[in-house]
Amino acid sequence: MPAPHSRLLWRDVTIFDGQQELPAPMAVLVENGHIAKLCRTGALTAADTDDARDMGCGGVITPGLVDCHTHLVFGGNRADEFALRLEGAGYAEIAQAGGGILSTVRATRAASEDELLAATLPRLTALVADGVTTVEIKSGYGLTVADELKMLRVARRLGQAQHGSLPVRIVTTLLGAHALPPEYSDDKDGYIRLVCDEMIPAAAAEGLADAVDVFCEGIAFSPAQCERVFDAAARHGLRVKAHAEQLSNLGGAALAARHGALSADHIEYLDEAGVHAMAEAGTVATLLPGAYLTLRETQLPPVEALRRHGVPIAIATDANPGSSPLFMPTLMLNLACSLFRLTPREALAGMTANGARALGLADTGRIAEGLRADLCVWDVARPTELAYAVQPGRLRQRVFNGEITHDRTQERRDER
Amino acid sequence: MPAPHSRLLWRDVTIFDGQQELPAPMAVLVENGHIAKLCRTGALTAADTDDARDMGCGGVITPGLVDCHTHLVFGGNRADEFALRLEGAGYAEIAQAGGGILSTVRATRAASEDELLAATLPRLTALVADGVTTVEIKSGYGLTVADELKMLRVARRLGQAQHGSLPVRIVTTLLGAHALPPEYSDDKDGYIRLVCDEMIPAAAAEGLADAVDVFCEGIAFSPAQCERVFDAAARHGLRVKAHAEQLSNLGGAALAARHGALSADHIEYLDEAGVHAMAEAGTVATLLPGAYLTLRETQLPPVEALRRHGVPIAIATDANPGSSPLFMPTLMLNLACSLFRLTPREALAGMTANGARALGLADTGRIAEGLRADLCVWDVARPTELAYAVQPGRLRQRVFNGEITHDRTQERRDER
Ligand SMILES: [Zn+2]
Ligand SMILES: [Zn+2]
Repeated sequence: MPAPHSRLLWRDVTIFDGQQELPAPMAVLVENGHIAKLCRTGALTAADTDDARDMGCGGVITPGLVDCHTHLVFGGNRADEFALRLEGAGYAEIAQAGGGILSTVRATRAASEDELLAATLPRLTALVADGVTTVEIKSGYGLTVADELKMLRVARRLGQAQHGSLPVRIVTTLLGAHALPPEYSDDKDGYIRLVCDEMIPAAAAEGLADAVDVFCEGIAFSPAQCERVFDAAARHGLRVKAHAEQLSNLGGAALAARHGALSADHIEYLDEAGVHAMAEAGTVATLLPGAYLTLRETQLPPVEALRRHGVPIAIATDANPGSSPLFMPTLMLNLACSLFRLTPREALAGMTANGARALGLADTGRIAEGLRADLCVWDVARPTELAYAVQPGRLRQRVFNGEITHDRTQERRDER
Repeated sequence: MPAPHSRLLWRDVTIFDGQQELPAPMAVLVENGHIAKLCRTGALTAADTDDARDMGCGGVITPGLVDCHTHLVFGGNRADEFALRLEGAGYAEIAQAGGGILSTVRATRAASEDELLAATLPRLTALVADGVTTVEIKSGYGLTVADELKMLRVARRLGQAQHGSLPVRIVTTLLGAHALPPEYSDDKDGYIRLVCDEMIPAAAAEGLADAVDVFCEGIAFSPAQCERVFDAAARHGLRVKAHAEQLSNLGGAALAARHGALSADHIEYLDEAGVHAMAEAGTVATLLPGAYLTLRETQLPPVEALRRHGVPIAIATDANPGSSPLFMPTLMLNLACSLFRLTPREALAGMTANGARALGLADTGRIAEGLRADLCVWDVARPTELAYAVQPGRLRQRVFNGEITHDRTQERRDER
């Protein structure tokens, strides 16, 4: 790898800036970790090009991808359960074989921090190799104070400059209210008290959580219980989000919106009133086509209503061992189009500008002068091709915080 | 890369042999391009291990993947059409914008052999990097004698040892009867005469085609027309296959089976009689989940009937610019499970043993002593994980015809 250089210049490229395509020939200059200039190639001055390293011509530059909803840290996997289900096993058999979310809880509790870090690293590496520069990671498989904090610590460590970390920005979310742990099987309210009175304060005190999430659903927690979690988060200065309207319409997204939620996620069963509430609050709609595919859902999210009300749409992998074991963000661009009928432009905005917005980040996810230089350079002629074709290996260069972290043109040179 | 070595030894691995899992600790010895020994690690003798290069322990070894149905050689792409459709454009608008299969025909005809080779290489590279060691490539976008032969020549060149080729085995299929070219718009029978009397003889004379395929469908060619193509293929000693029962039930698969077809492909609309005919003839059912997904098909292929009649099921990408721009075989393992409810074992057999069978190849697609050493070594604990999770980057080593063509453990050593 070449030594880092403080000024990097791309010319004659096509840009997707996070919302729209800026046709070639565009130029991008990166300096000191930031986008110093974005202009037509012909408008570059001698001062711009002087002493800048020539990073190449042609191709498409997008913001580094933002995967704003993942459950990437977990112990074990659920491949056996996946197979059993397809072999015709019923719910009881799978439960007897130790399947379901509680099997992931058991494996996650049993793992040390180092073991969880090692287990997560290949999954995070897959996301990074596919163009992700910012990824959200939720807790939610610990379901005790100690195990939830352990998960969040692992998530933090994955993104910190140290041995075993990767060049990626990690945003963490406390999802204590993900599922009811067996210890509280007869006492949902008691568990919610634990989340509100112990988990949230502890995570806030250690600075381990950037936001707080809930699963608002019949099989998880009621709107009233979720509201208590939102109130506790607010008391500790944390923004909230919700898994809502995934399997039924309980009004969870509207509730989250009223609490200023960054995003409401899944929302296949969201109604017009819920969309309206999200629009009012500026809450992002995060669509998760991987879970839709894996669960063979047939209820489509209300894309037309989201468009009509101007709700920003984000797209994420929902990477998790049960309902979306799909560790490939660019696949989600395609699935968002094929399954949800988003346009390629909407899908790309969903994994860049709107993904960043779903995390409350204003400095990444877009290409504009002054923002952080988190960029992907792709071997395609037009941005639409990234959603149209699923084809690993098209990432030419990856820039994280102004530094080149992947450069295939350089590898090719090395091979000669 | 290390120098090739004539004896390669893996120990303590789990094997998927093309049909079933052989649990660890198994061992595989490769010698002179072939699988010399497959046994329990404890059963290795001094003669086996003597002078053998230690290729590592653990992980899962499968046959190299066989992608038995692709349209990988084509000019242009259809990303604009993909976007237009999602933006709400109707059929007329897309036709007016030059979309549809004929746009690919125009671009393919306009391209030189070298241009087609260069355009195909990144797509083939994506398949190879995902574990493919054998790939079928069809013609069908030329639709003149010269352009069909040009496509087949490109396919042949991609697999021959020369500059710009890849370490992969290419099987070619003449698909002249893919669509009606504009020159014959009022004369389907006349075009079928061209296929039978000129294309097939020319491809056979030059040794460019390993088989002959047809598209039997209302929008393409009738069973009677397909039968004439099958008869012409037989006169030139070529086996046949068919795109059949993709959109309706015309009896194309049964017709193909009666002509000894290697495979009938798509077959969502196949009925019990058709399944029975395929079973009688030993014709493989090739399922194509990528096209099912992209076309938002809802009619599922008759998986239960195929199982009941013992019809071998293959899985392929159908990689093509219109209905399956998905250049990722391991994604098809997952989609075959999620969409078609195959078991992981069936999906894996579909891209190994049964994929090879759909191409009439007896020497690859399985792990058994004496067969060609086309192998993939994966960083997973169990074969099922390959279908369960979509996660690029798990291919540890790739062996093509007895030679290591990819070795991530070696890359890591180099980085130290
Ligand atoms: Zn989730
Ligand atoms: Zn096809």
